Amino acid sequence: MKILIINGPNINLLGTREPEIYGSLTMDNINAQLAEFAQKLGVEIETFQSNIEGEIVNKIQKAKNDCQGIVINPAAYTHTSVAIRDAISAVALPAVEVHISNIHAREEFRKNSLTAPVCIGQICGFSADSYKLGLQGLVDFLNNSVEK
Amino acid sequence: MKILIINGPNINLLGTREPEIYGSLTMDNINAQLAEFAQKLGVEIETFQSNIEGEIVNKIQKAKNDCQGIVINPAAYTHTSVAIRDAISAVALPAVEVHISNIHAREEFRKNSLTAPVCIGQICGFSADSYKLGLQGLVDFLNNSVEK
Amino acid sequence: MKILIINGPNINLLGTREPEIYGSLTMDNINAQLAEFAQKLGVEIETFQSNIEGEIVNKIQKAKNDCQGIVINPAAYTHTSVAIRDAISAVALPAVEVHISNIHAREEFRKNSLTAPVCIGQICGFSADSYKLGLQGLVDFLNNSVEK
Amino acid sequence: MKILIINGPNINLLGTREPEIYGSLTMDNINAQLAEFAQKLGVEIETFQSNIEGEIVNKIQKAKNDCQGIVINPAAYTHTSVAIRDAISAVALPAVEVHISNIHAREEFRKNSLTAPVCIGQICGFSADSYKLGLQGLVDFLNNSVEK
Amino acid sequence: MKILIINGPNINLLGTREPEIYGSLTMDNINAQLAEFAQKLGVEIETFQSNIEGEIVNKIQKAKNDCQGIVINPAAYTHTSVAIRDAISAVALPAVEVHISNIHAREEFRKNSLTAPVCIGQICGFSADSYKLGLQGLVDFLNNSVEK
Amino acid sequence: MKILIINGPNINLLGTREPEIYGSLTMDNINAQLAEFAQKLGVEIETFQSNIEGEIVNKIQKAKNDCQGIVINPAAYTHTSVAIRDAISAVALPAVEVHISNIHAREEFRKNSLTAPVCIGQICGFSADSYKLGLQGLVDFLNNSVEK
Amino acid sequence: MKILIINGPNINLLGTREPEIYGSLTMDNINAQLAEFAQKLGVEIETFQSNIEGEIVNKIQKAKNDCQGIVINPAAYTHTSVAIRDAISAVALPAVEVHISNIHAREEFRKNSLTAPVCIGQICGFSADSYKLGLQGLVDFLNNSVEK
Amino acid sequence: MKILIINGPNINLLGTREPEIYGSLTMDNINAQLAEFAQKLGVEIETFQSNIEGEIVNKIQKAKNDCQGIVINPAAYTHTSVAIRDAISAVALPAVEVHISNIHAREEFRKNSLTAPVCIGQICGFSADSYKLGLQGLVDFLNNSVEK
Amino acid sequence: MKILIINGPNINLLGTREPEIYGSLTMDNINAQLAEFAQKLGVEIETFQSNIEGEIVNKIQKAKNDCQGIVINPAAYTHTSVAIRDAISAVALPAVEVHISNIHAREEFRKNSLTAPVCIGQICGFSADSYKLGLQGLVDFLNNSVEK
Amino acid sequence: MKILIINGPNINLLGTREPEIYGSLTMDNINAQLAEFAQKLGVEIETFQSNIEGEIVNKIQKAKNDCQGIVINPAAYTHTSVAIRDAISAVALPAVEVHISNIHAREEFRKNSLTAPVCIGQICGFSADSYKLGLQGLVDFLNNSVEK
Amino acid sequence: MKILIINGPNINLLGTREPEIYGSLTMDNINAQLAEFAQKLGVEIETFQSNIEGEIVNKIQKAKNDCQGIVINPAAYTHTSVAIRDAISAVALPAVEVHISNIHAREEFRKNSLTAPVCIGQICGFSADSYKLGLQGLVDFLNNSVEK
Amino acid sequence: MKILIINGPNINLLGTREPEIYGSLTMDNINAQLAEFAQKLGVEIETFQSNIEGEIVNKIQKAKNDCQGIVINPAAYTHTSVAIRDAISAVALPAVEVHISNIHAREEFRKNSLTAPVCIGQICGFSADSYKLGLQGLVDFLNNSVEK
Repeated sequence: MKILIINGPNINLLGTREPEIYGSLTMDNINAQLAEFAQKLGVEIETFQSNIEGEIVNKIQKAKNDCQGIVINPAAYTHTSVAIRDAISAVALPAVEVHISNIHAREEFRKNSLTAPVCIGQICGFSADSYKLGLQGLVDFLNNSVEK
Repeated sequence: MKILIINGPNINLLGTREPEIYGSLTMDNINAQLAEFAQKLGVEIETFQSNIEGEIVNKIQKAKNDCQGIVINPAAYTHTSVAIRDAISAVALPAVEVHISNIHAREEFRKNSLTAPVCIGQICGFSADSYKLGLQGLVDFLNNSVEK
Repeated sequence: MKILIINGPNINLLGTREPEIYGSLTMDNINAQLAEFAQKLGVEIETFQSNIEGEIVNKIQKAKNDCQGIVINPAAYTHTSVAIRDAISAVALPAVEVHISNIHAREEFRKNSLTAPVCIGQICGFSADSYKLGLQGLVDFLNNSVEK
Repeated sequence: MKILIINGPNINLLGTREPEIYGSLTMDNINAQLAEFAQKLGVEIETFQSNIEGEIVNKIQKAKNDCQGIVINPAAYTHTSVAIRDAISAVALPAVEVHISNIHAREEFRKNSLTAPVCIGQICGFSADSYKLGLQGLVDFLNNSVEK
Repeated sequence: MKILIINGPNINLLGTREPEIYGSLTMDNINAQLAEFAQKLGVEIETFQSNIEGEIVNKIQKAKNDCQGIVINPAAYTHTSVAIRDAISAVALPAVEVHISNIHAREEFRKNSLTAPVCIGQICGFSADSYKLGLQGLVDFLNNSVEK
Repeated sequence: MKILIINGPNINLLGTREPEIYGSLTMDNINAQLAEFAQKLGVEIETFQSNIEGEIVNKIQKAKNDCQGIVINPAAYTHTSVAIRDAISAVALPAVEVHISNIHAREEFRKNSLTAPVCIGQICGFSADSYKLGLQGLVDFLNNSVEK
Repeated sequence: MKILIINGPNINLLGTREPEIYGSLTMDNINAQLAEFAQKLGVEIETFQSNIEGEIVNKIQKAKNDCQGIVINPAAYTHTSVAIRDAISAVALPAVEVHISNIHAREEFRKNSLTAPVCIGQICGFSADSYKLGLQGLVDFLNNSVEK
Repeated sequence: MKILIINGPNINLLGTREPEIYGSLTMDNINAQLAEFAQKLGVEIETFQSNIEGEIVNKIQKAKNDCQGIVINPAAYTHTSVAIRDAISAVALPAVEVHISNIHAREEFRKNSLTAPVCIGQICGFSADSYKLGLQGLVDFLNNSVEK
Repeated sequence: MKILIINGPNINLLGTREPEIYGSLTMDNINAQLAEFAQKLGVEIETFQSNIEGEIVNKIQKAKNDCQGIVINPAAYTHTSVAIRDAISAVALPAVEVHISNIHAREEFRKNSLTAPVCIGQICGFSADSYKLGLQGLVDFLNNSVEK
Repeated sequence: MKILIINGPNINLLGTREPEIYGSLTMDNINAQLAEFAQKLGVEIETFQSNIEGEIVNKIQKAKNDCQGIVINPAAYTHTSVAIRDAISAVALPAVEVHISNIHAREEFRKNSLTAPVCIGQICGFSADSYKLGLQGLVDFLNNSVEK
Repeated sequence: MKILIINGPNINLLGTREPEIYGSLTMDNINAQLAEFAQKLGVEIETFQSNIEGEIVNKIQKAKNDCQGIVINPAAYTHTSVAIRDAISAVALPAVEVHISNIHAREEFRKNSLTAPVCIGQICGFSADSYKLGLQGLVDFLNNSVEK
Repeated sequence: MKILIINGPNINLLGTREPEIYGSLTMDNINAQLAEFAQKLGVEIETFQSNIEGEIVNKIQKAKNDCQGIVINPAAYTHTSVAIRDAISAVALPAVEVHISNIHAREEFRKNSLTAPVCIGQICGFSADSYKLGLQGLVDFLNNSVEK
């Protein structure tokens, strides 16, 4: 079982700026931790980051071929991208939306997610742990589906 | 470490109705699973359910004395209760909001959460697993805080 | 066949205040008339009033066991209670929403009903007669369902 | 005592289309049942249907001369006709608004009624029985007024 | 010079109902006064009333042939008729919108006029005198145009 | 195969006014061209125009008997008529909505169509050619359905 | 009988700018014409202009002592001044609101008048003639009141 | 003369949390001060606190029997409770709404009060002194009424 | 300690109009009562009224030099003046907003106060007593601050 | 004459997924059919697809050099891209917007098109035939322009 | 060439309050710097400040006679003054709107400018330098116009 | 000191289209002028243009390494890009937003800027000079910061 981990715009800056706020974990650190955690869960992960909306669409489309699910932090595109929403719908892979911060405790426009309605669920506010929880939730979901 | 698990209105009906949709797990089943899972995490849980908004407020207030955190599924009160929001703020305990269904994929009014902005995070859409993920996320958060 | 008649907050004050406006019928009078009318229709009724949202939820949940339908005047909770809405949905009993006054001819916020969309219908504006018409409509609905 | 029964646009198609959904009762069947029911109530009815907003206005205006009340299903015009609203106000006859379906459980725009605020009440969701309940409610209202 | 005077729905009931409020002038009285006043202004008038939106559209279209301007009280259709708005635009005759009551001092929805933006002006609140003022304003407008 | 072509209010004025803007084609010219084009497509057309909303409803209802589809330019009623929307739904004939102008490039209120959601599609902005394209699209749609 | 004519901000620039658009009449010209017209109506007028909201309030307050009515063009303050609205209400003199241009055919924010709801009526779109019509309407209103 | 003092949800936590922000006064301290102040004003007070909306409704209903007025801090229910609003209206006792903080300087949703429109007035922002001012205002109001 | 009492537009008309509604107290009466009350509180007051927004801004600016606080009834400017709001912020004097009527029980637009968010609190609905309560509250606030 | 056919995000997945819903035509099939159809119309087409908003902007800019018109299905970007809108405006080529599905019969946010106002027209709902109709309409438009 | 520099309400307090936030520059300092800068640009400036909306209107009107352009910081009136907007339009002098702070990073209501749409441009966020940039931009604009 | 100049979508078309409207300056001309102007200010500039949102994000991220500030014309992305907003926040470089046209005088949706709140200021409406003014303002800002 292979899971695609997608990170949207500006997530690649994690850890290198304002570490007292966002923590000192870089995106690479998170991905490494996640790979380790995936191994425990018995799944493989592939990681991807892009600042370009359409490249994220491209990647989601390709996941159809060799992945069973997606953990995605669409970051800024959460609130503006119908294209990513449509891509998730189109490939019909189970997806989990994760956010590092609690999007409900920030600017008003961050409360609305265009992508969440086509995902199986959303997790936000647990810093880097949001990814782990998202991966856990997705793998459990896939295992349950398989059992049925 | 003791965590309070709160369930809002109508969650007590789980499992007894439309099992083909909501699954056959009752709230008691979920709580039992959760207790077992808590043991693995090395924490104690107390469970509480009420259909009455103010009793949930009462319970949150009392948690101040003997709990270190709260996992809450406010259910219908998610969208209408300033009182529960204020209670969470007032006791200043870390809280995690969980939902069985994906609230972003239902009626428009279910997208807005009055309580999420005062929680550390929100998890929705993973059926009964939302509780487990919420408990995991909360315990990790508390452990991290302790370490710092 | 047994029908639960639920009255929401402040309905218990009927008849004791401003009788020149609301008429001199008390809630007990209405319930008595309704019991008599129910007898004609060949059904039994149980009446319930509470000012507490969650107790109304409790009562609806219990109706699942021994009632075939509900006539409910949610009063103020019509416009604010997702919890009562969810309870009606959850027990899946046919429910009729009634109002003493014409809610469309009052303050703007009274036009919107959170509970009506999960009922089979809504009746408003006929003073105490709204209950009778609601009971009549519900019993006819139940009889038709039985016939089919 | 004579009551005018008005049906708005497309109600004349009832029964002839999609009978598995709307039932096999035609508008004529409903009117016949209603006439029989009116007889029991000791009142006379006149029935009228038009797809033209202004003709419904015309009919309401003429009712002033020989009717004591109106049962009206404005159908589509419920949501768009200030003219029918003003006509009901102008003739100052007690009117009851009825709907076959539960307008609160359909498209958002069907929740708002321009005509209900000038009626004594509104009944919706009881299929063909909405008319009977409306007639009953209106006749009771008129009898009460007479008694006073 | 010939001016068409158009009255929309329910204006034909003027004077016959609630004379203590709307005055005892009927629409015919107003039209008679207006004819007399028109004579003083040296213009001819033709009067028309209909409760049917589309017939008002028909009449406006025909005015193109033999009228130089229109005084219109669209009544209820003021707030709902794009068809009448488009008809006024299409015939490109100068039109004046008049209202008996002050539409800014009534229900919120009466403040908005769909037809006023395509008229040369709007007059409201002067009871039956609104028509006279409208006719005066229109004739002055036409005379000024001729002079230029 | 017979197709009904419906034109809404003020379309009958085409060509006779402001030909430098709207072109010199009259509605009759368009209908003649359309008849010729229909012949090429191997279908018969019937044309209808009315300024009265309810007459358009009447015509749609009658189309049930002898037409296989409808091309409709509801003109002003596009934005205000729930009655025409309901008529199209009720007869369950495939309908295509057409507009001469690009309704998305005009006043804000013209962007919303009440009728488009119950049609198979909408075409706007191609002047008189919008009708031809609409007829073409409808006939292709019907032929495809037949083939299946 | 004495009538106060009030002009709001920037009306004092009339005639001196863009005469091809606004005409070559200055505010003084209009006032002179109005004085002449007033004489015909048998009333006296006093004219006042200010660019300062509060001075207009001052003037309205003083009118209580020696005027029987007010014709006011609040200009820009139409859309922003609760103070002028309250002043008109407070002195309880009949007031007529006039506008040179058709405020319904301009920017969206010009459609709403804060002052019109407390006037007896509003006249707009007749260029300088709006004042004459307003004075005529006001004097007729006052004469009618006197007669009663 | 007896006045009921009602405190809504979470007010019972005052003084025990974040004393550097909310001050070190507990609700009991405030009530004690208020009792002393009431004595000076020559009135008796009864104090009540509940976190349950419906119990506050119950209490207001009972106040009808032995109280002449109400000072209420509905706290969170200010913004969500139609039931408390209706209770205040129903008992027709003069009520004063008070708030410890300045609700106009906090989250947007706290600006709107459902209960204030049915009170004689509202006082906010004076910390614990808001209660004293409210009691003073209410007693003065009652004394004035008595004098008249 | 000196307190500035500011009254906004039209407050100067108090008492001279409709005394059966607003009471027979003039603004001068209120100011006299207030001066007497101030003496009891051991503070000096200066009173000011203007109908001109900018003059109120001027006065607030000057208060910086010799006043310790402000009681202001901005009247109509409550709802429209960012300038007064900014002036209060700029001088950084504690200010209390008062209203004679209950602004929450009037027109919708009167519910919003632009000035309240920069005051320490707001008092409304106690007729002339609103000023006394406001002065009391402000003096208590200032004394508390001094003590700290 | 050369026409550019642009397809936006996720259109490249057509035919390969859920063929029972979207039909078994791939984007390549559609383009092939379109090329054949173009030949009949005597025009050349160039096809382009991208999931990246900015690449679509790039392509539109280049079309200026060698194309006479554009048929564009902006897909998801229809509702979010001001950049594509501005590109179409900037190159000033006649463009036709097409959609496979009826965007008026789907989620609310799909009704609004940012790009349609700068196109000559919009066609939606005819499945793959929307492209053909769009190309037909565009070519007719260009031929008409040439003739003039 | 002479440029009028206008400062709106409360700008006269600059420098005398909270210098650690707003800097220690007074309005007079800024004006002096600006005069010096103007000399470099070869233009004359006249400076004006008022807290009174109407006096700013007066000043703008007079500028018509002897100024070629306006740099205006309308301060609070930016968001509320249609009168100043209309004055700028009426005198038809090129105007530049400047703000000391970044109005897009403050309260929501400060984002909307009523005056900017009638200016040639807007500059905000550069502290006192906003004036210099505005003057520079205006003079360049005027020189360019002269050259053409 | 090095400043990055970023141009968003379609700015690369400047000068080559409609020169009578947008002037004959190409983006390269503007950049050349800007380089010359930068030299005078004693700073270096790097210029960048892209039609792809994510590439602009990429460029902003890289600027962190070798630039001290950013002048950005996000063009169409001003109104839709949370990603660019987040990038500017993330790199924490002072940025100035510039626009060639006055965005407040165009379509309603162009008034809102998602990026301006995270910039130090915004300049719009000065054609190509907006860039110069923006560069001037940014350099002054940086020099002032250095001095402090």
